[in-house]
Amino acid sequence: MKGSSFTGSSCLRGQESAGIVTSDGESSQAFKVHKGMGLINHVFNADSLKKLYPSNLGIGHTRYSTSGISELQNCQPFVVETLHGKIAVAHNGELTNAAQLRRKLMRHGVGLSTSSDSELITQLLAFTPPLENDDTADWVARIKNLMKETPTSYSLLIMHKDIIYAVRDPYGNRPLCIGRLIPVGDMNGKGKDNTETEGWVVSSESCSFLSIGAEYYREVLPGEIVKISRHDVQTLDVVRRPEGDPSAFCIFEYVYFARPDSIFEGQMVYSVRRRCGQQLAIEAPVEADLVSTVPESATPAALGYAQKCGLPYVEVLCKNRYVGRTFIQPNMRLRQLGVAKKFGVLSDNFKGKRVVIIDDSIVRGNTISPIIKLLRESGAKEVHIRVASPPIRFPCYMGINIPTKEELIANRPEFHDLANYIGADSVVYLSVEGLVSSVQESIKARQDNPKTHKSFIGKLGHCTACLTGDYPVELEW
Amino acid sequence: MKGSSFTGSSCLRGQESAGIVTSDGESSQAFKVHKGMGLINHVFNADSLKKLYPSNLGIGHTRYSTSGISELQNCQPFVVETLHGKIAVAHNGELTNAAQLRRKLMRHGVGLSTSSDSELITQLLAFTPPLENDDTADWVARIKNLMKETPTSYSLLIMHKDIIYAVRDPYGNRPLCIGRLIPVGDMNGKGKDNTETEGWVVSSESCSFLSIGAEYYREVLPGEIVKISRHDVQTLDVVRRPEGDPSAFCIFEYVYFARPDSIFEGQMVYSVRRRCGQQLAIEAPVEADLVSTVPESATPAALGYAQKCGLPYVEVLCKNRYVGRTFIQPNMRLRQLGVAKKFGVLSDNFKGKRVVIIDDSIVRGNTISPIIKLLRESGAKEVHIRVASPPIRFPCYMGINIPTKEELIANRPEFHDLANYIGADSVVYLSVEGLVSSVQESIKARQDNPKTHKSFIGKLGHCTACLTGDYPVELEW
Amino acid sequence: MKGSSFTGSSCLRGQESAGIVTSDGESSQAFKVHKGMGLINHVFNADSLKKLYPSNLGIGHTRYSTSGISELQNCQPFVVETLHGKIAVAHNGELTNAAQLRRKLMRHGVGLSTSSDSELITQLLAFTPPLENDDTADWVARIKNLMKETPTSYSLLIMHKDIIYAVRDPYGNRPLCIGRLIPVGDMNGKGKDNTETEGWVVSSESCSFLSIGAEYYREVLPGEIVKISRHDVQTLDVVRRPEGDPSAFCIFEYVYFARPDSIFEGQMVYSVRRRCGQQLAIEAPVEADLVSTVPESATPAALGYAQKCGLPYVEVLCKNRYVGRTFIQPNMRLRQLGVAKKFGVLSDNFKGKRVVIIDDSIVRGNTISPIIKLLRESGAKEVHIRVASPPIRFPCYMGINIPTKEELIANRPEFHDLANYIGADSVVYLSVEGLVSSVQESIKARQDNPKTHKSFIGKLGHCTACLTGDYPVELEW
Amino acid sequence: MKGSSFTGSSCLRGQESAGIVTSDGESSQAFKVHKGMGLINHVFNADSLKKLYPSNLGIGHTRYSTSGISELQNCQPFVVETLHGKIAVAHNGELTNAAQLRRKLMRHGVGLSTSSDSELITQLLAFTPPLENDDTADWVARIKNLMKETPTSYSLLIMHKDIIYAVRDPYGNRPLCIGRLIPVGDMNGKGKDNTETEGWVVSSESCSFLSIGAEYYREVLPGEIVKISRHDVQTLDVVRRPEGDPSAFCIFEYVYFARPDSIFEGQMVYSVRRRCGQQLAIEAPVEADLVSTVPESATPAALGYAQKCGLPYVEVLCKNRYVGRTFIQPNMRLRQLGVAKKFGVLSDNFKGKRVVIIDDSIVRGNTISPIIKLLRESGAKEVHIRVASPPIRFPCYMGINIPTKEELIANRPEFHDLANYIGADSVVYLSVEGLVSSVQESIKARQDNPKTHKSFIGKLGHCTACLTGDYPVELEW
Repeated sequence: MKGSSFTGSSCLRGQESAGIVTSDGESSQAFKVHKGMGLINHVFNADSLKKLYPSNLGIGHTRYSTSGISELQNCQPFVVETLHGKIAVAHNGELTNAAQLRRKLMRHGVGLSTSSDSELITQLLAFTPPLENDDTADWVARIKNLMKETPTSYSLLIMHKDIIYAVRDPYGNRPLCIGRLIPVGDMNGKGKDNTETEGWVVSSESCSFLSIGAEYYREVLPGEIVKISRHDVQTLDVVRRPEGDPSAFCIFEYVYFARPDSIFEGQMVYSVRRRCGQQLAIEAPVEADLVSTVPESATPAALGYAQKCGLPYVEVLCKNRYVGRTFIQPNMRLRQLGVAKKFGVLSDNFKGKRVVIIDDSIVRGNTISPIIKLLRESGAKEVHIRVASPPIRFPCYMGINIPTKEELIANRPEFHDLANYIGADSVVYLSVEGLVSSVQESIKARQDNPKTHKSFIGKLGHCTACLTGDYPVELEW
Repeated sequence: MKGSSFTGSSCLRGQESAGIVTSDGESSQAFKVHKGMGLINHVFNADSLKKLYPSNLGIGHTRYSTSGISELQNCQPFVVETLHGKIAVAHNGELTNAAQLRRKLMRHGVGLSTSSDSELITQLLAFTPPLENDDTADWVARIKNLMKETPTSYSLLIMHKDIIYAVRDPYGNRPLCIGRLIPVGDMNGKGKDNTETEGWVVSSESCSFLSIGAEYYREVLPGEIVKISRHDVQTLDVVRRPEGDPSAFCIFEYVYFARPDSIFEGQMVYSVRRRCGQQLAIEAPVEADLVSTVPESATPAALGYAQKCGLPYVEVLCKNRYVGRTFIQPNMRLRQLGVAKKFGVLSDNFKGKRVVIIDDSIVRGNTISPIIKLLRESGAKEVHIRVASPPIRFPCYMGINIPTKEELIANRPEFHDLANYIGADSVVYLSVEGLVSSVQESIKARQDNPKTHKSFIGKLGHCTACLTGDYPVELEW
Repeated sequence: MKGSSFTGSSCLRGQESAGIVTSDGESSQAFKVHKGMGLINHVFNADSLKKLYPSNLGIGHTRYSTSGISELQNCQPFVVETLHGKIAVAHNGELTNAAQLRRKLMRHGVGLSTSSDSELITQLLAFTPPLENDDTADWVARIKNLMKETPTSYSLLIMHKDIIYAVRDPYGNRPLCIGRLIPVGDMNGKGKDNTETEGWVVSSESCSFLSIGAEYYREVLPGEIVKISRHDVQTLDVVRRPEGDPSAFCIFEYVYFARPDSIFEGQMVYSVRRRCGQQLAIEAPVEADLVSTVPESATPAALGYAQKCGLPYVEVLCKNRYVGRTFIQPNMRLRQLGVAKKFGVLSDNFKGKRVVIIDDSIVRGNTISPIIKLLRESGAKEVHIRVASPPIRFPCYMGINIPTKEELIANRPEFHDLANYIGADSVVYLSVEGLVSSVQESIKARQDNPKTHKSFIGKLGHCTACLTGDYPVELEW
Repeated sequence: MKGSSFTGSSCLRGQESAGIVTSDGESSQAFKVHKGMGLINHVFNADSLKKLYPSNLGIGHTRYSTSGISELQNCQPFVVETLHGKIAVAHNGELTNAAQLRRKLMRHGVGLSTSSDSELITQLLAFTPPLENDDTADWVARIKNLMKETPTSYSLLIMHKDIIYAVRDPYGNRPLCIGRLIPVGDMNGKGKDNTETEGWVVSSESCSFLSIGAEYYREVLPGEIVKISRHDVQTLDVVRRPEGDPSAFCIFEYVYFARPDSIFEGQMVYSVRRRCGQQLAIEAPVEADLVSTVPESATPAALGYAQKCGLPYVEVLCKNRYVGRTFIQPNMRLRQLGVAKKFGVLSDNFKGKRVVIIDDSIVRGNTISPIIKLLRESGAKEVHIRVASPPIRFPCYMGINIPTKEELIANRPEFHDLANYIGADSVVYLSVEGLVSSVQESIKARQDNPKTHKSFIGKLGHCTACLTGDYPVELEW
């Protein structure tokens, strides 16, 4: 990376495995690979990173397990040698028709060495017929062919020689966005210094750009195939959804998964979450003395709720920074202390008061219950729970790891008397409509603005399958 | 710990080394010791903890380096064998006359194997004359003798056979408080279960009690020698300060060091910090659109400031949870990114607005400066800094690790034009008087209350040496 | 493995990576895999082994790098899923026409994810046409097809469901032998105990059998396909060499690579090495006082030489058991101490004497030279070197990692005055004919014996390519 | 160590802990210490060694546990600060009156932080009265005082500022010898190069000198206090034994503990062991076909036995280099394989023959038994055991870790029919007289030689306590 541009991609959300493949941009044989199980800081150290240099471009991946057994072979990026050189592929998402595609490949005599979609995609790209006469590789044709075989869900980075192809499925289910490395001169405020400045980065979440000195450029659009080279970001093609199908970006990214400073569809996740809190205040107000939160993911919703209701926002819990693994033999005393280990109680702040706690979601119902108990024991007069998202009821087949139907509190009998079950004075969830409108409100405002460029997106929609059971495509097995 | 009481102590604040010594309470030879360098989670695992059992009492220590080289030998607790059995000592603080005491011991022919005060204290306890005829150990007499030789600063736990002595120096410079293990029955809310319930714990900070199922009982008072055994907490003696000397609890514990849910001198640290923010709003108001904080230690002061001013409290930064070790070779680009790596920017929340940032302290001045730059680049119209504590100007010789005088921004020429140096529109610190009154306000109110038990404390004061240079005792070398 | 038979294979010679795949013998999907870089003891621990159970059969592999970059992906056994279930392949050797076969597969649209022959072999097995109609997998036909595509060198273990196929290439270049688990009752000498007794093991070297309680059963013959199931070892087919081609077992296994207690072609390696020493005594006698060795691989040759000459065998060096990594900065002193670190000198044993040192091979010439210097400095009057194998001059393309031609002492100008170069009074190598006759002498005697079963082997030969440049097959690139 | 002399000491025999203390030779405060549990290669790496530089002298220690619990605090060298600067002490041996000395120190008010003799020695050196007036430290007087307080067993290295004192107890029970760093010029054979040449090293065993480029200089004599500085080795004093007491060097060092190339009392350990084999042949001949050994410590004795008897020396077992930790669940099969895992069997070498196996010692009797079984199963006609040392019957209180009396085979009933118990055709031990004469023969010859310098040694003897129960001093508790 000495005195030259860099084009790269990374997604730091997964904690199960991590990998990086770099290329010197000249020979398709000269890929350098380092992958391993575990957190990125365990997989990479100064030595392993040094081995990835010199390089002008690279793709990385961190895995958050959905399909595929948790094994080293499933680590991404996946690299294969083809007749036209090596390609490396990083994949975020889960193919809804993976089983069908695996059978197809094996029927053609290709052995599959892993259970990951990532290998499946590389072999599909390598295999595209007609092969015997195909002496010049047309990678764009191969990518379009792949996109026709599988509708969703995938955001892909495909590296070959000195080019990275960034691809998002036609439904736009998984995020993918492009950033531009800020010239160092600009960062200094002293004018451009062209020696170390050019380059592009691609990531699932825009929040990662700031920390590497890049700025948000734009999203890859649903169905778009973008070619990224040293100096250039260029749309090669757009594969459309079937007529009438709305886009289906995962609404769970807004609710829970993404970092609050990330930008999707032109809006900051934090702002959406605050709007959810405001909407929740409209849908489910409560007579109380103060509004608080379970630190720290529900804070934006809590501030939105408090502001809308006109109640003070007060902290009731503080995080225990030193919580670690628990080695001590679990006797009866210690089994009861799970929550008390994670949080300290700021009891003077709420003694004798009626408290509204805003949580971002209640999935299994076993986290909020001991918190309520703790607050009551420390002097809270009433504890009302308001949840800034609707109940989760259905499995996700597109890349989000959701508990089984049986584990989801919304599918269990206790749900009918939930306040009593968790020990709250009252509990109300945000409605699906409330969530969708909180998410779409500002997108629609922008779309209605005649100045907005809107050619590719098509009909606006969001995937709410885990809340409603309405999957964006028919599921194949 | 099976079916029996436990008396223990721990302080989880240090990150340099950790150690635990346990005793079965019967033989003074049967101490079990495990110590090591590094975070407590690296030093202890299931195996090393198992080796500490069975035991009825124990003391632990985590080290936050002040004096003493960072070496394994300096790990506490320190154990020595004496003619009257083994003793184990854990020490929080720093003896102001350590050098003098070391020379005294060495002159008597005792070789010192470490540079730690902890060994010094154990050898002083072992050495107390007259020795030849001293066939029965009077540990209380030895402890009182030690307290006469060194005025401050120390909070001590001394374990011998089945007793732990908890000791605080006459000035009360370092914290020490006692908790009571809550009977499991009470935790269940189903009545007492006496088989697993009795026991006492001692800790520097009360915040640790909740996470082990204990409740705050009381502080050890300045100069107090408390004997803790299985069923009993008993004051053995109180060693008084020289006539007229006020108590000198470290004010830095309130400002920065302690966890917000800890209780010192009858008040929650969080409440003191919020009062500091309120006081700061009175001392240094500013015309602005919103009040925010550098997450997360300054949040109580920011909420206090916002409430007092009537300005909205808004989040402008979010913590990057995935920050880790940085392996990448530091080139020009990356050196500029230190702050951007730690925080994400919630720019939509403050674009075009005048922002007041409350920080808890500005020590060297090199943390706040890039945050201000970041906020301005992300659209803040004005950035005003308000610091919820006075400038640090002097070294601490009593256990807090403060940068050298030359490193402290308050002692450097740039301090005279600090706003300009850090790039802020204005910057104001809380006054020493404002801090002291925020700290003492509610203590005095309680003392004035005729119902309060106040026998031991004597004249109220706080150590503000790092802010004012007024050390509670004369320093000896 | 509780109360049941076990069929397995392992080769512990490699130190670069290790892997085990087990099968419960029922479903081809139920393979359990653990692989990793490094010595087998680093790769496997109690936990990783536990995960491989329960299982009735398994194959393992340790890698000694020849072709293929040293990366995790290249770890064997290689597992792929095919239309007819999973297969796992472990491979010892190196395909002489690998590049050609890779191109063929890629031309058919198969992407290759590693550079190892092992993946190549699995994909060739998966790919065998005609595929569309091939609803029942005929693995033997696939294996025979593979053997026709590549003549040498490979010893293979292929696991599918409850069967392991053991295969040796038609030239028999790499070893492979079968052992039988000794019934525990027999081991006790108390009669058979059938509950824990049945099972077969396959290994490159028979020496590994003893350590797992198995006994040598027989070699897999050149070209033989053996089917191993729970109760049965059965020859399925034999693929013949081209008419007139002799067998080509690697002679380097006898000279250097194999453990002395291994059995190849009906003879113990130790016995061959002793015969080499005897033959060397005939070819190159010397007037001296004693015969010794560089411990410990040349000891059998030294004892053979000493006995044939009638000179006493005496130890002159002892191994330094505590040699480890050297951390100390290499200054001039320490660079000179390499050999002295590995060996202690038993100077009293040879002071003033004429010493013959038998070495098993001189490859680069930089090991023996400082030993000679050490012996002279410690009092040896004369030092004569006799090498129990001929000089290595040519690269190996069949699985042995030999230094480059330029590094081989026999190809360098110093070779013409080698005694002077290494500081010896004389140096003589064993002749190629002498080596071949030492190896073949007892095999021929057995073949001439009318009782010997000889159907499969065909014309006897050995691969001496590294010594003579005569490769058993034409090399393709 | 750049361009300067080095004076150091080390003993690499222990495997339980390791430590190094270095000094820059100028200030007694400037000691650098690194110690840790485990093998030296685990304790030290490039970083920890770098921290020990720059330095001109240092002492090191590896621990082979005898007294003192296996804990980090017991790691040597032990360093204490005294009124006269820091001293570091490394100790080999075990004080026979340690308990008495500990009580004495504690009675004087010194707390002891470890159970090691090494701390005891440092505190005794620090404590020596009269202290109040002792403003100039006379370390030699302190060392002599220590030696009068404890007769044996200790070899000591005491470092203070730029001097190392090397001390051996009056009985000479533990070894200690001095080496001289060979000038690099001499090593090159090109004349002296004075820039990197001067320096002295001290070690328990002379075998370590060769590997660091030093040559044997001389032993430290029993009772001698040697002062080692940069240019000089100087005898300061000799503390004599009580009139009539013979010297008592540990005979077990010759039999088992030392490396064969070490020199004690002017003779190579290997030569003593060979003489033991020859003596054994005289004491216990046997009609047999060949003589062999359990590799590899008994090889010198086996060669001596074979030569004296006129029988051929033949190898019957080869070491399995790849033996490692065994993870596999211990079922019946694997429990029987202990020995087979360590050794390969060279059955062709002894099938149908009568074998004499020479072992260096039989301590518990559970190692030789399965070897005999293995040899018989592999075809040995007869197996006779000859042990090149007498039976061990008594505990050692002077530094050698010997099993408890109950574990020693010589104290158990089975000993009366040992051949039958271990499954041998016959078994005979060397006599105590035979061992002593094998050890003393050449020492006496040298002493009788009028040219030999013999002033310090006094009456010659050896400690045979573990064989005879005759301890060199009265044991105190």
